[in-house]
Amino acid sequence: MTDTTVVSLQDIRDAAHRMAGAVHHTPVIRSRTLDALLGSRVYLKAENLQRIGAFKFRGAYNAIAQLSPAELSRGIAAYSSGNHAQAVALAAAELGSTAVILMPADTPAVKLDAVAGYGAEIVTYDRYTEDRVQIGAALAADRGLTLIPPYEHPHVIAGQGTAALELLDEVGDLDALVVPVGGGGLIAGSGIAAKACNPASASSASNPKPATTPDGPSRRGAGQHPGAAHHRRRAGRRHPGELTFSINRHLIDDIVLVSDDEIRDALRFAADRLKLVLEPSGATGLAALLAGRLTPAPARIGVILSGGNVGAARLGELLA
Amino acid sequence: MTDTTVVSLQDIRDAAHRMAGAVHHTPVIRSRTLDALLGSRVYLKAENLQRIGAFKFRGAYNAIAQLSPAELSRGIAAYSSGNHAQAVALAAAELGSTAVILMPADTPAVKLDAVAGYGAEIVTYDRYTEDRVQIGAALAADRGLTLIPPYEHPHVIAGQGTAALELLDEVGDLDALVVPVGGGGLIAGSGIAAKACNPASASSASNPKPATTPDGPSRRGAGQHPGAAHHRRRAGRRHPGELTFSINRHLIDDIVLVSDDEIRDALRFAADRLKLVLEPSGATGLAALLAGRLTPAPARIGVILSGGNVGAARLGELLA
Repeated sequence: MTDTTVVSLQDIRDAAHRMAGAVHHTPVIRSRTLDALLGSRVYLKAENLQRIGAFKFRGAYNAIAQLSPAELSRGIAAYSSGNHAQAVALAAAELGSTAVILMPADTPAVKLDAVAGYGAEIVTYDRYTEDRVQIGAALAADRGLTLIPPYEHPHVIAGQGTAALELLDEVGDLDALVVPVGGGGLIAGSGIAAKACNPASASSASNPKPATTPDGPSRRGAGQHPGAAHHRRRAGRRHPGELTFSINRHLIDDIVLVSDDEIRDALRFAADRLKLVLEPSGATGLAALLAGRLTPAPARIGVILSGGNVGAARLGELLA
Repeated sequence: MTDTTVVSLQDIRDAAHRMAGAVHHTPVIRSRTLDALLGSRVYLKAENLQRIGAFKFRGAYNAIAQLSPAELSRGIAAYSSGNHAQAVALAAAELGSTAVILMPADTPAVKLDAVAGYGAEIVTYDRYTEDRVQIGAALAADRGLTLIPPYEHPHVIAGQGTAALELLDEVGDLDALVVPVGGGGLIAGSGIAAKACNPASASSASNPKPATTPDGPSRRGAGQHPGAAHHRRRAGRRHPGELTFSINRHLIDDIVLVSDDEIRDALRFAADRLKLVLEPSGATGLAALLAGRLTPAPARIGVILSGGNVGAARLGELLA
């Protein structure tokens, strides 16, 4: 069994059709400076301008839109401290359902407010002593809710893939696509779209470099679990799932690690040159390019700028 | 003689046709939060994502594209410390000409570098003791260059008007259009486009409030010279020209003044909610909306976010 067949290009095209009008067709940003720096043509897909400020709305919307009327009427559950929480809350509201979001008790107030602002109910848990997967499953079972996972779901993956599909439809074939990796849903969907359009194109996963290996290699082979280092670094944080891993090991040609300083340089470049606000995890692809990690740089490169939910005060600190 | 006939809607349509492919069709950004705050539908035209990071590229390109081959071969001159300098430098290069830009000797290095990066020659002057208009005219005469003024030129005004035209073509009729005012070229062109499409629509000029009138009125009548206060506040800075004033006094229905704090709030809102970087002078329209200066708020409001050239370090200070 080939796991990449779990989600097909047609599934992604269907998702794009399903979400038309509800999801923003985000702009592709070009930078003369970036092109000159790499000697390439670089196409930046500005998913920070997506609704809720990140690509996550695509997957949540695509998954919730395929639920039955009965499921929509019982409601949705999700666990997330970040963009997936907002994505599910907004998509549920737009599709006439309700959402219960399981969030860590120490989530910043601004994030809790954003989710509550979309009309969702928030249930908190202690992320140091409790397991969100277990609580989420119990909550869903108790209340008859449908759980929408942040990435371990074919409909979520197909939804995320529409970001790359839009980019490819707009700019044509790419030699390489660089995609930030968290749980792996975005690169799974994007990689399926890119490989289907051009089997020779390379998909690169950009990841923050683990702080524990300051002099470690800046690249790892694609066979390695793309989030292993990420997982070691931040106990309690999410790590790529089995479904996304089983898809991505066939799709990812290269894993590029970028340091915190390189990510900060990318945030500055985005503000200075692109006039865009990016969140650190959404800037790893741009950081990889600016740090010269793609050598030799392919002729036509797509990069997904995956989100911009950083907060003005924190951005101020990062830029100052 | 009606001065608004100096530039017609057809001139603006011709300009849009002339610059197709060279000038970005910038995205229109929507914000659910902003809509809810005003009880209106707000359409934000993101000219900070225009080439050189501001609307100024439109006017410079439209003016230079209409020069004769002989004029292009002799070259262009311009005086500006800011966005117009970059706009003329890039447009001249793209249209096969050369540019000499007169800039204050104390211009920040980053701005000098940007202009030089587009291949222009830079001539500096002392802005405290020398008159840039005089020096610019002499420079142009000596070298046979064609001077492209920052706003006092029908082709520049028609070019700037394409920003509003694109917005109107994309979103349809507006009840009000709010436009930041510097020299008055953007609002002149935008106002002509908006009034031609919908004579009943209101054009509001948004301006920084003069620091010398802390308790002064937040609105002034349209008969008053829109930049008078601005001029008093910053000796040596540009002030609206006679051509733009003669057009704008027929077009501007309302002048809205915003304080530095209100502008800062708008920069924070843009970063937090829109994921966009704005320069302070480019955020005055958004600031007017957020400060509740348009009451009662019309049903459909267009706002031009006119530029984003603030610099990451300065932005960091403003957001922190």
